Amino acid sequence: MAMNAVASGLVVSVVPDTGITFPLGFRAAAVRAGLKSKNLDLALIVADQPCPVAGVFTLNLVKAPSVPYSERLVKNGMAQAIFVNAGNANACVGPQGDADNLECAFLTASALGIPQDFVLVASTGVIGRLMPMEKVRAAVPLAAAGIGLSTEIDADVAAAIMTTDLTQKQIAVECRSPHWQGTLRIAGVAKGSGMIAPNMATTLSFVTTDADVSSDLLQAIHSRAIDRTFNRITVDGDTSTNDMCLVLASGASGIPIKSPEAMADFETALEQVLQFLAKEIARDGEGATKLVTVQVVGGRSEEEAAKVAKTIAESPLVKTALYGCDPNWGRIMAAAGRAGVKFDPDKASAWIGDIQVFNHGVGGNFDSDAANTYLKQSEVTLTVDLASGDEAATVWTCDYSYDYIKINAEYHT
Amino acid sequence: MAMNAVASGLVVSVVPDTGITFPLGFRAAAVRAGLKSKNLDLALIVADQPCPVAGVFTLNLVKAPSVPYSERLVKNGMAQAIFVNAGNANACVGPQGDADNLECAFLTASALGIPQDFVLVASTGVIGRLMPMEKVRAAVPLAAAGIGLSTEIDADVAAAIMTTDLTQKQIAVECRSPHWQGTLRIAGVAKGSGMIAPNMATTLSFVTTDADVSSDLLQAIHSRAIDRTFNRITVDGDTSTNDMCLVLASGASGIPIKSPEAMADFETALEQVLQFLAKEIARDGEGATKLVTVQVVGGRSEEEAAKVAKTIAESPLVKTALYGCDPNWGRIMAAAGRAGVKFDPDKASAWIGDIQVFNHGVGGNFDSDAANTYLKQSEVTLTVDLASGDEAATVWTCDYSYDYIKINAEYHT
Repeated sequence: MAMNAVASGLVVSVVPDTGITFPLGFRAAAVRAGLKSKNLDLALIVADQPCPVAGVFTLNLVKAPSVPYSERLVKNGMAQAIFVNAGNANACVGPQGDADNLECAFLTASALGIPQDFVLVASTGVIGRLMPMEKVRAAVPLAAAGIGLSTEIDADVAAAIMTTDLTQKQIAVECRSPHWQGTLRIAGVAKGSGMIAPNMATTLSFVTTDADVSSDLLQAIHSRAIDRTFNRITVDGDTSTNDMCLVLASGASGIPIKSPEAMADFETALEQVLQFLAKEIARDGEGATKLVTVQVVGGRSEEEAAKVAKTIAESPLVKTALYGCDPNWGRIMAAAGRAGVKFDPDKASAWIGDIQVFNHGVGGNFDSDAANTYLKQSEVTLTVDLASGDEAATVWTCDYSYDYIKINAEYHT
Repeated sequence: MAMNAVASGLVVSVVPDTGITFPLGFRAAAVRAGLKSKNLDLALIVADQPCPVAGVFTLNLVKAPSVPYSERLVKNGMAQAIFVNAGNANACVGPQGDADNLECAFLTASALGIPQDFVLVASTGVIGRLMPMEKVRAAVPLAAAGIGLSTEIDADVAAAIMTTDLTQKQIAVECRSPHWQGTLRIAGVAKGSGMIAPNMATTLSFVTTDADVSSDLLQAIHSRAIDRTFNRITVDGDTSTNDMCLVLASGASGIPIKSPEAMADFETALEQVLQFLAKEIARDGEGATKLVTVQVVGGRSEEEAAKVAKTIAESPLVKTALYGCDPNWGRIMAAAGRAGVKFDPDKASAWIGDIQVFNHGVGGNFDSDAANTYLKQSEVTLTVDLASGDEAATVWTCDYSYDYIKINAEYHT
């Protein structure tokens, strides 16, 4: 199925039921180390050769050791493997956490026979508890022995990084562009906002591609694409101590990304993969009953439009109204008005789906039954026109339901 | 009962069961205009003479006409009456809203025989619906005829401004200071975050005092006191289109507030009144089961400490954990870490009540049963020490319960 075809001639096609090992030059494995009940909880993603890497990391000051460690390695520009575990975040445990994080890299490097400085580490799960290293020591060699390449392994990796996610989140695409010779592949896997003792909503995401792209260019493209995708989703405004999104580029397709046109098309394709994963995370937000797209148009800058969209998307009053399928335009405009962005409310307008609910400063003259029916769908869109410029931005979120409270209040550390 | 006695010798004593007319020189009335079901919904607060006034107003760009109108009058420095109604916010209805707002002031001025420019207007309730002016026209003369001075009237005024508040919020205090001759009085009434179709959480608050203080000084003192009280509460981070907090000073006590010491003591007393009302609003937040005090100490500035405290107080993950009585220090520290304030997590510490839950970067070594028991109380305190300076700030909030979702999702416009 064609995901999107843009004016340049780029065609991005989803290849169903495949994932992280679909791009050429990657293998993976997932095992059950015993870090979280009885499920898969430890995975390795491995490139055949050291290859360019890029990454973005949580901005939270309270960071797990995996974050500064992997950030430092990404700055080197080359990596070959990712160690990832769920069930234990290895955060807020003091100096032992740093030592255990290093040992995760060491164990992986030893088992794979590659330099330790090529092994990135990502962890998610309970914070404030020491990583049970005896379990990791037993599991890593087993994982390394099982390294392979299959659709089953892809699904296992997607399962292994889940915490309380209800759905696996993976995608693989084939891309063709007139600006490059042949077909290249991009795949990604992510975990969403799950809840772990004592918990926070953690996002981990890993992307592989067989494009031939330098690490500097990959980092620039990845950072821009993240700004428009992962940085545009919000479940509850809380940022984790462990977030990271890494991309490895094997170059095995033999397609160089060098000309400006080739770069632009690669960025678009990567953005589509990241957008898919980001929306899946929003859709599977804790207690969510629907995916909500908040579009703000008519802004003076994309940054300002995004700020307004994010304020609406994070408003508990808006999110509870969406859960209740109530076309509560007053809450939408009140959230827009407090976003810290200048606009003239008497020129602004708003829509729920295609139904205009606020027209140049005056709200309320619309068919509220139709709006209520529209809001009962599993995907809904809110649009606000600030009428102060030509820039736009989109943010994705979910609603707040009883289950959000249930998941987050009834859990006990 | 003595509310507080500070080092300067100031004594502030609460006078039970009285309210807005307790200070000398004020009368009030409340009537049922029919704007909200069958309850009192329109009140007048009237000074015997024109007197100095100060006010703070919502920063939301989407404002009801009452906000810029009253803001303009407050800038003149003198006022004599406040018209306030609940049940209809008179917001987002176009130019007719401006005309209706002016007519509310005109009707009040006519009935009281005072200049229209001395009548402030405050409205709260449904937005997006025209004010039923025929009801207001009938009610204002009735209210003016009933203007008086009694504890029953005080309670009626507190009731008339409520929307879905569960409790009336009023206070009256007598204050003595060695820096002024005799006793002066301050009283206040407020409405909290109630939910009205299509709704937002609105705060209105009115304060009277018989201190003799100029309007410029009153405004400076009021603004500072508001910053430490009303601007330090948060229920859900949403700001209304109609918020205002007004203070009228009759001077009828004959006590001039002029020396720096007299000013300082008056500011402290006013702050105590505002703090009481602010905490009552937080305690009565939608669905709240407990009042939560978030103290941040060891900040580089009061502003930074307040920013961290507010981020913790607004975190849905923290608020749901508090509802669940779960001593979830991970969520508290993760919120602190994303507040945008620089500090070293490895030096920071945190407490739930008196129980230290995070100690210089390491969390989790505490009696979680004792912390759970502590969190079952109706008033709880969280403390975070940033260990980067000597400044502190306090923010008040409430927890997020099923009822928050119920109140805000099950309502239909």
